Amino acid sequence: MQQPIAILDSGVGGLTVVKEVMRQLPREKIIYFGDTARTPYGPRPAEEVTRFTREIVDYLIQYRPKMIVIACNTATAVALEDIQSRVIIPVVGVIYPGARAANSSTQTGVVGVIGTEGTIRSGAYEHALKHLSPTIDVISLACPRFVPLVEQGNFRSEETFETVRASLQPLKSDKLDTLILGCTHYPFLVETIAEVMGKDVNLISSDGETAREVSTILQDRNRLQQGEAVPVHQFFCSGDPVMFKRITQQWLGEQIELMPIVWQVPKIG
Amino acid sequence: MQQPIAILDSGVGGLTVVKEVMRQLPREKIIYFGDTARTPYGPRPAEEVTRFTREIVDYLIQYRPKMIVIACNTATAVALEDIQSRVIIPVVGVIYPGARAANSSTQTGVVGVIGTEGTIRSGAYEHALKHLSPTIDVISLACPRFVPLVEQGNFRSEETFETVRASLQPLKSDKLDTLILGCTHYPFLVETIAEVMGKDVNLISSDGETAREVSTILQDRNRLQQGEAVPVHQFFCSGDPVMFKRITQQWLGEQIELMPIVWQVPKIG
Repeated sequence: MQQPIAILDSGVGGLTVVKEVMRQLPREKIIYFGDTARTPYGPRPAEEVTRFTREIVDYLIQYRPKMIVIACNTATAVALEDIQSRVIIPVVGVIYPGARAANSSTQTGVVGVIGTEGTIRSGAYEHALKHLSPTIDVISLACPRFVPLVEQGNFRSEETFETVRASLQPLKSDKLDTLILGCTHYPFLVETIAEVMGKDVNLISSDGETAREVSTILQDRNRLQQGEAVPVHQFFCSGDPVMFKRITQQWLGEQIELMPIVWQVPKIG
Repeated sequence: MQQPIAILDSGVGGLTVVKEVMRQLPREKIIYFGDTARTPYGPRPAEEVTRFTREIVDYLIQYRPKMIVIACNTATAVALEDIQSRVIIPVVGVIYPGARAANSSTQTGVVGVIGTEGTIRSGAYEHALKHLSPTIDVISLACPRFVPLVEQGNFRSEETFETVRASLQPLKSDKLDTLILGCTHYPFLVETIAEVMGKDVNLISSDGETAREVSTILQDRNRLQQGEAVPVHQFFCSGDPVMFKRITQQWLGEQIELMPIVWQVPKIG
C-alpha cells in the first residue's frame, strides 16, 4: 500500500502546496485536511493553534503518512516543533523552505515577509532567515485582510486589488528585492501582489519551495514513491464541504478532474 | 569541534558549490578536495571515476565530516550510490538538485541538459528527471570542450565565446525553456551561455541548487551549525597548488580573503 504525504492547513490555503506537490511529484499520494470550520488561525492564540494542529495530526496519522506537511504558516510558526516531537516521521513546515529560497535569491540582503498576525508576531521568518544568514535584514508586515478574501474565493476583484495595494504600501519605500509570501493563502493573490510590488521584487511562494523540500527530504530518506500507479488522493475538511470542494476544484483545475478523489467531512476537535 | 561539510570535485568546478554553500550557510565549515592532478573525469571510464571518488572520500573521512557533497556531475552520475553505500553520513550529488529545480521551473515540459561525455552517456539527468516527473522531455548534449577552458581559467575570452556558441548550436532550435548546466564547471561560463541561449531559456546551475539541498537535508537531520564561530575552511588539491590557489582565490574573491584557510597537497591514489 502506498503511504501518503499528509498535508494540513487552517483552510484552503494549503491547496497551493498540494498543487505544487502534485505537479512536482505526480507519483505521490496526498491526504489533505483543511480546517475550514475554524479558519482563520492567524488571529488565534498560539496554544489554540497548537491544539488544533495536534487534533488534525492525530486524525491524519491513522492513514499512516510517510511525512506530514504543515502547509499553514501560522501553525508552522507556533506548532512545528511540538508536532515534530510527537511523531517519528518527518514533519515539514512552510517557513524554512520560503526562508531558504529568499536567502538564496536576495542580492541586496533586504528581505520582506508578509503574513498573518500570528505568523508575523511569532517572528518565525526573521528567526529562520537569521539562523541561515546572520547578516540578512528582514522587514515584516502583517496583512490580516488577505486570508478572508481567499477563503471567500475572491481572488481578482477590484476590492481585492485595493486591499492588496493599501496593505502593501508600507513596503514600497524599502530597499527589499525579495518578498516572501508568508502565508499559504497568498499565492491565490500572487498576480495582484506582483502588480503592486513591481517587477524588481522577486516574490517567493511557500508552495513551490515547500514541494521541492518535500522531494529533497523524501529522497534523502529513500522514501520517494516508485512505479507507475496513479495515486488516489483524499481531501478532508471540517466545515462546509460544498464551498471547500468548489474552491479545491477551482484551484486544482484540470489536475483534479482527471483524478479519483475521496471527499470526507470527519468530526474533529 | 565543528564537523565540516566535505565537498569534492575532479578539479576546480566544485568551487562553484563551495561559493554557494559559503553564501547560503555562512556558519558551516567546509573541507574541499579538488583532484586537479587527474582532471578531467568526463572522458574516463566509470570504474576509474568510481575508484578516484572512493580514494578522495577515504581521505576526507578522517576529518569526520557530517555530510559529503560530490560536487562533480561525472562522479555523481557513476559513483553516488557506491559512496552512499560505503558511509553512514548523507552523501549528496549535484544531479538531483538540478533536476528538481528544472522540474519545478519548466512550463513547456522540455528540459535541456549539457554536461561532460561521462555525465551525458550515463543518462543520469534523464533518469532523475523522469523519476520525478515521468512525462518530462529531456534533450541532452555533451560539451567536452567546456571543462578544459575553465580549468585553464579561461572564462571570458573570444575563444571561449566561440566554443560555447558552436557547442550549443544543436539546442537552439528546440522548444526547451529550461537548460541544466550539468557540470559544476559551467557556472564559470554562465554569462556566455546565457548570451548564447537568450533570455527565454532559464538556466539551472547545480551550485545554488545543491547548496539549498545541503541546507534542507542538514536541517531535516538537525545538523545545521549553531552559534557565531567563524569557520576555518580547508582546501586540498592533488595537483599544482599554485594554479589551484589562484583559481580558488579568483572565484571566491573577497569571501576567501577574509577567511583563515588551510591549504594542503596530500598524496592520494
